[in-house]
Amino acid sequence: MNDCLFCKIVAGEIPCDKIYEDEKFLVFLDINPVNRGHSLVVPKKHSRNLLEMEDNELKEMSVLIKKISNHLKTQLKADGINIVSNNEPAAGQLIFHTHIHIIPRFEGDGFKHWKGEGYKEGEIEKIQEILELD
Amino acid sequence: MNDCLFCKIVAGEIPCDKIYEDEKFLVFLDINPVNRGHSLVVPKKHSRNLLEMEDNELKEMSVLIKKISNHLKTQLKADGINIVSNNEPAAGQLIFHTHIHIIPRFEGDGFKHWKGEGYKEGEIEKIQEILELD
Repeated sequence: MNDCLFCKIVAGEIPCDKIYEDEKFLVFLDINPVNRGHSLVVPKKHSRNLLEMEDNELKEMSVLIKKISNHLKTQLKADGINIVSNNEPAAGQLIFHTHIHIIPRFEGDGFKHWKGEGYKEGEIEKIQEILELD
Repeated sequence: MNDCLFCKIVAGEIPCDKIYEDEKFLVFLDINPVNRGHSLVVPKKHSRNLLEMEDNELKEMSVLIKKISNHLKTQLKADGINIVSNNEPAAGQLIFHTHIHIIPRFEGDGFKHWKGEGYKEGEIEKIQEILELD
């Protein structure tokens, strides 16, 4: 993809703060981290987002995500890890090349999760009916 | 795990609003959804969180996550999808049995992402050095 920022980083045309690379994936530091060490796992092959990735690539990426998460937790003495994939602009995706956020978390760092709200009576059954898969 | 809520749901001892089940995984609606249709992908075999999952199980789960994400997007006419894994209490994990949040998102639903902040001069190189993997 000619005008894709992450394709340019993968090609070495734009620098990044790399922490890991293999034949298929690149992992580098997010330059606007939520916490220090916040990293991005990026498949070298272009895809718009995780929803469009090939199964085999996705499987390999999932193992790498676990490896990087545990590595960050150990090396940064983090108390927890958030793994986040934002797909499409409505979900906060800003760069349209698949990337998974690995965010080290620390007790008391103050980041709050979105608040859920219970279903009204009869509502959950309707959603379940729409979503039930065989 | 005798006192694990999700093990009890998997065993059928506690009901859930199931949308998918196979030999190894269960997917059901979160009862406190961020948006309607917010679902949880849960491996039947107990593990504390994704950081401790076996590679083979993780690979299979990654393909299911994509499938459920695309299904929710289509069926709910969602504009985007967040896929979120919270590992350990500092990262917002509340139930200590692996579960992945699949959150349908809609334009203008108002959920904000955590704000990142750029590194100070010289700081990113130090973090990179700590995290660099061979």
